[in-house]
Amino acid sequence: MSAIDARCRDGAPLLEDARHPELLAEVHGEWSIVESSPRSLARVFVLGDFQAALDLVNAIGAVAEEQNHHPDLALTGYRNVTVTLSTHDAGGLTMNDFVLAKAVDALAG
Amino acid sequence: MSAIDARCRDGAPLLEDARHPELLAEVHGEWSIVESSPRSLARVFVLGDFQAALDLVNAIGAVAEEQNHHPDLALTGYRNVTVTLSTHDAGGLTMNDFVLAKAVDALAG
Repeated sequence: MSAIDARCRDGAPLLEDARHPELLAEVHGEWSIVESSPRSLARVFVLGDFQAALDLVNAIGAVAEEQNHHPDLALTGYRNVTVTLSTHDAGGLTMNDFVLAKAVDALAG
Repeated sequence: MSAIDARCRDGAPLLEDARHPELLAEVHGEWSIVESSPRSLARVFVLGDFQAALDLVNAIGAVAEEQNHHPDLALTGYRNVTVTLSTHDAGGLTMNDFVLAKAVDALAG
């Protein structure tokens, strides 16, 4: 089992940059690393309509609460959901962000 | 009854800029006009926690569906909700944006 299939853990350390490529390969190809402050991991979903987009926001919200790791969620343009993951306490990307990305992928089918 | 207390209507025309001050006076003081493209009306809510923020997103989503006018909704930083209203068909602000702003105010208490 890969570390990405575990649960989010409190106090996860910042990942070394060299780990990013292998972890990106374990999540959906539409995730990308954003050089924001702090650095983040983002994916955009285009749904059928507003209600479908809201349903995805809620499904992600439930997983976020369950894992105690909370992404930024933006519902824009009626049917698009942008998920942005980062670990503020660590100042960038930790394993928790990739764990949650994979959990989000599972929700989106 | 003010026009702002009516429902959103299809095909609402772009408001003249001169109308903005009087309409801003009818919604909560934290709404502000953003000179984005298209121009929009935005308010940030700071909730107690992630679930409270998600609950507000859902309450706004239900009103948006009921009125058939859909804001952009961003849940960021664990407990902040940014509501951004604009009427894309008209290319800026219409009465519908102020009507929905007032409906959102009513939800937020």
